[in-house]
Amino acid sequence: MTAVAHEDVLAAAGRIGGHVLRTPVLEVAPGLTFKLELLQHSGSFKVRGAFNRMLAAGEMPPGGVVAASGGNHGLAVAHAARALGVRAEIFVPEVTSTVKVAGLRALGAHITQTGAVYAEAAEAAAKRAAETGALQVHAYDQPEVIAGQGTTGLELLEQTGGVDTVLVAVGGGGFAAGITVGTSAGGSGPRVVAVEPERIPTLNAALRAGEPVPVQVSGVGADALGATTIGGLAFEILSGPRVESVLVSDDAIVAARRTLWERHRLAAEHAGAAAYAALLSGVHRPEPGERVAVVVCGSNTDPATLTG
Amino acid sequence: MTAVAHEDVLAAAGRIGGHVLRTPVLEVAPGLTFKLELLQHSGSFKVRGAFNRMLAAGEMPPGGVVAASGGNHGLAVAHAARALGVRAEIFVPEVTSTVKVAGLRALGAHITQTGAVYAEAAEAAAKRAAETGALQVHAYDQPEVIAGQGTTGLELLEQTGGVDTVLVAVGGGGFAAGITVGTSAGGSGPRVVAVEPERIPTLNAALRAGEPVPVQVSGVGADALGATTIGGLAFEILSGPRVESVLVSDDAIVAARRTLWERHRLAAEHAGAAAYAALLSGVHRPEPGERVAVVVCGSNTDPATLTG
Ligand SMILES: Cc1ncc(COP(=O)(O)O)c(C=O)c1O
Ligand SMILES: Cc1ncc(COP(=O)(O)O)c(C=O)c1O
Repeated sequence: MTAVAHEDVLAAAGRIGGHVLRTPVLEVAPGLTFKLELLQHSGSFKVRGAFNRMLAAGEMPPGGVVAASGGNHGLAVAHAARALGVRAEIFVPEVTSTVKVAGLRALGAHITQTGAVYAEAAEAAAKRAAETGALQVHAYDQPEVIAGQGTTGLELLEQTGGVDTVLVAVGGGGFAAGITVGTSAGGSGPRVVAVEPERIPTLNAALRAGEPVPVQVSGVGADALGATTIGGLAFEILSGPRVESVLVSDDAIVAARRTLWERHRLAAEHAGAAAYAALLSGVHRPEPGERVAVVVCGSNTDPATLTG
Repeated sequence: MTAVAHEDVLAAAGRIGGHVLRTPVLEVAPGLTFKLELLQHSGSFKVRGAFNRMLAAGEMPPGGVVAASGGNHGLAVAHAARALGVRAEIFVPEVTSTVKVAGLRALGAHITQTGAVYAEAAEAAAKRAAETGALQVHAYDQPEVIAGQGTTGLELLEQTGGVDTVLVAVGGGGFAAGITVGTSAGGSGPRVVAVEPERIPTLNAALRAGEPVPVQVSGVGADALGATTIGGLAFEILSGPRVESVLVSDDAIVAARRTLWERHRLAAEHAGAAAYAALLSGVHRPEPGERVAVVVCGSNTDPATLTG
């Protein structure tokens, strides 16, 4: 038994249904489906976990919620907090893009930019939550967050009628873990290809080491996939037999992002294009007849950079 | 009886099914659904009509196909011609955006840029087709083109289970006419709100005059909604009782386009945002409980201009 069960994802779906979009799927070629999670409120799947964590907690403390984030999780928490009428404090590292900081400001969140990478902002957030008694909404390492992200997988199965393989990007691993649980039924389910940038191999390194270990964080995915260490809960789930860990180069991510715009008119950020990069660059080669789903999961980007 | 019947749209759906995307719908709020036709191949619905016209014609003449277009129809014809291995000659007016001309070139079409507005390019195309014997694929005024565009309406009804109102942009009227026919069943169907820029009121002026009349063409929609006169076939269909003609300002179109990006992460061109402008600006005010669908129909735009 892992910390998150399929029933937890079903419960999350019931809880957050009125607050998040059921994002569409698009069959772009026979056997290849995109789950358009980049069209989600706040521009990424992160609102699913944020709403589930906050709604599952019931009554909010007077200090509201605190979160640390490379950007997308912060935007999601700020969005959910505003929707639920709660105060939000967000800690972001220096690497966070100006688009994301501007978005946070527009949502009325209290922002502190601190630390070089996500892990340092996370420390500051934890300290602050301990001081104020605010509810911490972790970016990936809480059961309610993983269960919330997993609703993406539930929807995907309902919308496609089943696939053989799901490609999904990994940062701290909450999204991939949630999708692994959300797409399982009685233990079986599609293969989950967990895609990471070569320059931030948190899951890959952990699988080699047999336990979560810190990695260097750099490259185009750093502001969204920039966790230093895979989450403990996620690692437990992603060590399972249905999951395969693969790495993609930054060049492959850049090329996939450009193709998503030019061919599919989807405005993805780099992290949002990482899963597709594994397919487009041939890191994952589907068997004949394999039904593949790619989760395109983030759009918090300056559109002027899509064609540059 | 009009020139295009519901059965013609069903036949078109069968013909083009393997060549066009079944674009997704997205319920963005209770009772408000977007049909994401901007994610279609070539960046607009226009491939539907182009494929249907070409496939219905059977054997292609040695001269291939000729079309005149503000841009999107040309891109669609070039896309379809390439897919079917046919030569394409496209005539575009000076008003056509550089993004669209570059796209045409990338698709390998033979391009002639001539005339100030669409109507002049159309004359040149007709002359050329008469010389070469090429198949003319009209941008809006052919039954097969209207039937092809109408498949958007068929899908919309299947995907939503029915709506009360469809908002759709009008240039030469082929799209709105097709959707009107495609969403009808036994004569009844949703109300079709036909949306035009105030500065290109082809349908509105025709309905007042009781017949198609030329109008001045200007404003932000000119390169995609820039027909001078509503098509004769479209006028016949759009004069019917289910259709309502409304006008939106250029400012409302610009605001809707910006909102589509900021709130919904959809990269629409101005014409693609015109239908939404009617809702957002209050030109169309839904009754309580009215189920509204907005067709977001074009994305051939420079993404750098989405936030500008
Ligand atoms: C767009 C996008 N994709 C993927 C991820 C990875 O999610 P996780 O950290 O749960 O692995 C993130 C995390 O912020 C993200 O923003
Ligand atoms: C994006 C877009 N929307 C709407 C239209 C209008 O279609 P029609 O000319 O069939 O009325 C066009 C025509 O080119 C278009 O490109």
